[in-house]
Amino acid sequence: MKTIYFQQPIEIFSAAAAVGSLENEGLIGPFADTHSPDDQFGANTWEMAETEMVRQTIDLALKKANLSPSAIDVILAGDLLNQCTATAYGALPFHRPYIGLYGACSTFAEGLYLGSLALESGHYKAACVTASSHFSSAERQYRFPLEYGCQRTPTAQRTVTGAGAALLGLCEKKDPAMRVCAALPGRMIDSGVTDANNMGAAMAPAAADTLLTYFWESNTSPDDYDLILTGDLGAIGADLLRELCADKGVTLGNEYKDCGLEIFDPSQDVHAGASGCGCSAVYVCGYLKKIWNDSPLSDVLLIGTGALLSPLTVQQNHTIPGIAHLIRFSKTEI
Amino acid sequence: MKTIYFQQPIEIFSAAAAVGSLENEGLIGPFADTHSPDDQFGANTWEMAETEMVRQTIDLALKKANLSPSAIDVILAGDLLNQCTATAYGALPFHRPYIGLYGACSTFAEGLYLGSLALESGHYKAACVTASSHFSSAERQYRFPLEYGCQRTPTAQRTVTGAGAALLGLCEKKDPAMRVCAALPGRMIDSGVTDANNMGAAMAPAAADTLLTYFWESNTSPDDYDLILTGDLGAIGADLLRELCADKGVTLGNEYKDCGLEIFDPSQDVHAGASGCGCSAVYVCGYLKKIWNDSPLSDVLLIGTGALLSPLTVQQNHTIPGIAHLIRFSKTEI
Repeated sequence: MKTIYFQQPIEIFSAAAAVGSLENEGLIGPFADTHSPDDQFGANTWEMAETEMVRQTIDLALKKANLSPSAIDVILAGDLLNQCTATAYGALPFHRPYIGLYGACSTFAEGLYLGSLALESGHYKAACVTASSHFSSAERQYRFPLEYGCQRTPTAQRTVTGAGAALLGLCEKKDPAMRVCAALPGRMIDSGVTDANNMGAAMAPAAADTLLTYFWESNTSPDDYDLILTGDLGAIGADLLRELCADKGVTLGNEYKDCGLEIFDPSQDVHAGASGCGCSAVYVCGYLKKIWNDSPLSDVLLIGTGALLSPLTVQQNHTIPGIAHLIRFSKTEI
Repeated sequence: MKTIYFQQPIEIFSAAAAVGSLENEGLIGPFADTHSPDDQFGANTWEMAETEMVRQTIDLALKKANLSPSAIDVILAGDLLNQCTATAYGALPFHRPYIGLYGACSTFAEGLYLGSLALESGHYKAACVTASSHFSSAERQYRFPLEYGCQRTPTAQRTVTGAGAALLGLCEKKDPAMRVCAALPGRMIDSGVTDANNMGAAMAPAAADTLLTYFWESNTSPDDYDLILTGDLGAIGADLLRELCADKGVTLGNEYKDCGLEIFDPSQDVHAGASGCGCSAVYVCGYLKKIWNDSPLSDVLLIGTGALLSPLTVQQNHTIPGIAHLIRFSKTEI
């Protein structure tokens, strides 16, 4: 594994987030750019509602930057639906070169990594990265149709209804900016977890592997960062990550947070927290980008986490590999 | 859209292909590196057979180059299964940074584009690109379980049981090499096709869009290339591409071929031809790379084609967007 330090001044220069109704009532609500009171976004299926979130966030991110779609050199994007169709249909109207990704819930970080590499190559000026998920489309695909009214286990997380779109470009040297200064794509770690209702446990070892490798390669420690943010480990996975790091002598303190615990208010009873491609995408595009310039944050690590299972591999009793990709944001040149 | 001309001397320095039994009896048979007489590759499910193909091709490509997995900086890979699990489990044992892709049957070209961008960034020495598909895992996921014995329509194509792995690296200036000298990622084109048994028709307009854009941007014509190769348009899609190009005054002559018509022998009765992520991957990694150095081919276009549908979007009566990414191979520096 090898941390990439980008030589080009890459930044997220515009971003937008769309969320569902429960998310809007939660911690992220005041920061989202748009929401749907019935989670449908005007569509007549949950899948097309997710599509509409993707379309709206790209559109909003472009409008905020006062750009037309032609300014985007490439769209790098994905979601959780089979064959990533929410993203494909959502990106279709923009008529730009399109690269579909599947990184489970790590997709947003994966897109930031690839988008930054694309800009680093020197050939591009702007890349658009999106990731989305929808509670209702995910439940019926991964678990049970909502109409069944199934109970969820205490370890289960609630898939975020939300999408985030980020426009990456070359920074014009006016700090503060939300720079993508480094990235470390992770390897899969399979710790033998087979419980599809405990994804935090499946993903935490991969998050630990990437984060500890990053600290080792960069010769830094948690104290060196204002915020260390995992994607969607949830309550159980976040505790496990703290333990796995402590085992290696690395203490994650108050600077460590998990996006899965920052979307919903604890009173909303979503069991072990939030999850889904939309979780970290909404947190970064909706919240972090908005507060960035005026906040005391100047050096932040995002570790996008994903569980690489499918309903079929669960039925076939396979273990669940986890993956985690690290992105480092900085306010000024490092 | 914008064609990228790579400044770094990027080449496919090693490749390997695995195929199933019918493929082995077809045109590609003599060139594949390994095959399974029962399509199972020693696994007890079709999905794990596909996984095993991915694993074996990466392993073989590394062995041919006399490299250990640690030489790979990043694996960029995907397949057609829900949540791309064949690729995840197949790449898992190599323990390298892993980036999952979903580009439907355009995945191999998508991976070559991203892998080349990664090398172009200057941070990497070697990237591994794989794509795979399996007739039996695809049939039960996209259409019907084989046990039903359903008849297929004349426009249907047969999903290739096959995987290809390519190792991309920086060329050490000893020509001839299989260089990746240019790439043009495509945009989605939705022409309103809703027949999931006629993917050639859904993909041909995207192939035409990318190919015609490339000719226009590069100020070249079909005559300038020794071979123009689409991914898996099949008989119907390939004819349609010829027509769409002719409408714009561009004549595709004998230099034009479709991988979907080069895998099986016509006597094998696979209706409109071959398809699947494995189709172009097997053709390029199994055949093209093997004959490359001693062949008269010196300038070749690959247009990886994909149909961005899912069984659910078909049930919901959505149209099928197509996509096509172009990769230009050259034998010497251009």
